Amino acid sequence: MIDQLYRKAILTVAERKPVENLVRARGWGLAQRFVAGEDIPSALSAVQELAKDGIQGNLDLLGEFIESPADCTRFADNVIRLLDAAHEAGITPYVSIKLSSVGQGKDDAGTDLGLKNARRIITKAKEYGGFVCLDMEDHPRTDITLEQFRVLVGEFGNKHVGTVLQSYLFRSLKDRESLDDLKPNLRIVKGAYLEPETVAFKDKSDVDANYRRLVYQNMQAGNYTNVATHDETIIDDVKRFVLAHGIERDSFEFQMLYGIRRDLQKELAQEGYRVRAYIPYGRDWYAYFSRRIAETPRNAVFVARGMLKG
Amino acid sequence: MIDQLYRKAILTVAERKPVENLVRARGWGLAQRFVAGEDIPSALSAVQELAKDGIQGNLDLLGEFIESPADCTRFADNVIRLLDAAHEAGITPYVSIKLSSVGQGKDDAGTDLGLKNARRIITKAKEYGGFVCLDMEDHPRTDITLEQFRVLVGEFGNKHVGTVLQSYLFRSLKDRESLDDLKPNLRIVKGAYLEPETVAFKDKSDVDANYRRLVYQNMQAGNYTNVATHDETIIDDVKRFVLAHGIERDSFEFQMLYGIRRDLQKELAQEGYRVRAYIPYGRDWYAYFSRRIAETPRNAVFVARGMLKG
Repeated sequence: MIDQLYRKAILTVAERKPVENLVRARGWGLAQRFVAGEDIPSALSAVQELAKDGIQGNLDLLGEFIESPADCTRFADNVIRLLDAAHEAGITPYVSIKLSSVGQGKDDAGTDLGLKNARRIITKAKEYGGFVCLDMEDHPRTDITLEQFRVLVGEFGNKHVGTVLQSYLFRSLKDRESLDDLKPNLRIVKGAYLEPETVAFKDKSDVDANYRRLVYQNMQAGNYTNVATHDETIIDDVKRFVLAHGIERDSFEFQMLYGIRRDLQKELAQEGYRVRAYIPYGRDWYAYFSRRIAETPRNAVFVARGMLKG
Repeated sequence: MIDQLYRKAILTVAERKPVENLVRARGWGLAQRFVAGEDIPSALSAVQELAKDGIQGNLDLLGEFIESPADCTRFADNVIRLLDAAHEAGITPYVSIKLSSVGQGKDDAGTDLGLKNARRIITKAKEYGGFVCLDMEDHPRTDITLEQFRVLVGEFGNKHVGTVLQSYLFRSLKDRESLDDLKPNLRIVKGAYLEPETVAFKDKSDVDANYRRLVYQNMQAGNYTNVATHDETIIDDVKRFVLAHGIERDSFEFQMLYGIRRDLQKELAQEGYRVRAYIPYGRDWYAYFSRRIAETPRNAVFVARGMLKG
């Protein structure tokens, strides 16, 4: 409960324009901890920097206020530009996209525009041996996202496209089972949207328990699993689970956010686990930055300390 | 002429077993300048190190004494292992192979074993968005290599497989023309084997003039060109040529050997040219190392200095 209050308070303050202006003016140096930069070269440098520690990247072009179909298609074009640039630089592209950003739910001559743009993106990613994760958004989009995921796996196979399940949703265990025939590549997260009690667990302990179930079941089904969490207790449990059940190290990976628990990321990579950092970049970094601050007071303390110093 | 004598002298000395033993014992630290290491992780680290300077890699698994069909297939398996490991590390694989190392000229149930193994390698490389260059060897293998290149481009397209032409061979200009229908990706080199006067230019000026012709003609034909040389005069001429003829920077690249003219490699990358270093690795580094020393007294001086120091 205190978590929710803190999150709401921060997000409310962050949405105020004078606050945004102040942070935009002063905060770039601080945001750098969580955001790789505003453009593609910065994003790729971050990937190369992490590679030295054996950590891979999952690039996410930040986008806000993408409204019109033309905006969505332009956004998809920018993602394709990122894929081209990564390939050009010898980096196997791994990106995350929000289907809503590329036109999900918008009709384009009888086909969903999001699906069309996703196809363009995945076609390119596949050409480059890369991967596209369809990020999960708030619960009204879950059905359509899973449907479109199914269509896209049918077209491109399960090695070039994956999606996400959120452990705070009641439905996720069933959703996971329903995808098993695809041998899907799934990222398991706790979930970060403010969801109503009618669809989501409110207690941390329920969310955590469901998180473990999703991870363990997906692994035992023989599917590739992206364990996306900073929760060290869960990470330790997963390590024990894979050992006990003979889950191969090349069939799962740990994923964390860029700049968060760098120590832990390095440590896991050194222990021989696959680790991937979610690297956001783009000019619209402010909203993402606010969400990171809203997430835990620890991040706020870090930033406040930086502001006092600088 | 003095060049030839120097080369022969060095190679004769290098082939003597006591010399090899001495160098193998003392020389690894020195060979490191030219060889990335003995295993795959070392090779991939070299790629990541170069990436920081905007230089890409062309990985070459060194192999000597590959004789039996089983040796050839095992060698191909090792190249595939490299491709897997590169992809795993988020690196788009770019490798060079000698067709003789994977069985060229050896029959395997009615098909050339080299072609079969090359198919396996390129299939994997293509899956990862990568690239395989079929290296050119001595002139008795030119015909079959170009024939097999044609077959493989037919099967995999021109984006995942390329080959090499040597400007010291009289035939190369005609060979280049004969490949134009494939829109081939060609690396142009001067050539490093000791070839008879009946097939190859002996004068440096002829080799150089032919080098320029091959590069210019390949560029004007709209084919992707790998300008593989350390010759600064030629590099400067190529820079002028592309400017004068509006050749796009994404339709050619400069290639040099790992550890040779690092300054120049960095400089070209900083100027915005594509640059790729040829990175040899593997346990059989000695012969490669000897050839580098034999190439120019400059490299010998470098190594001698290192030996006196260390």
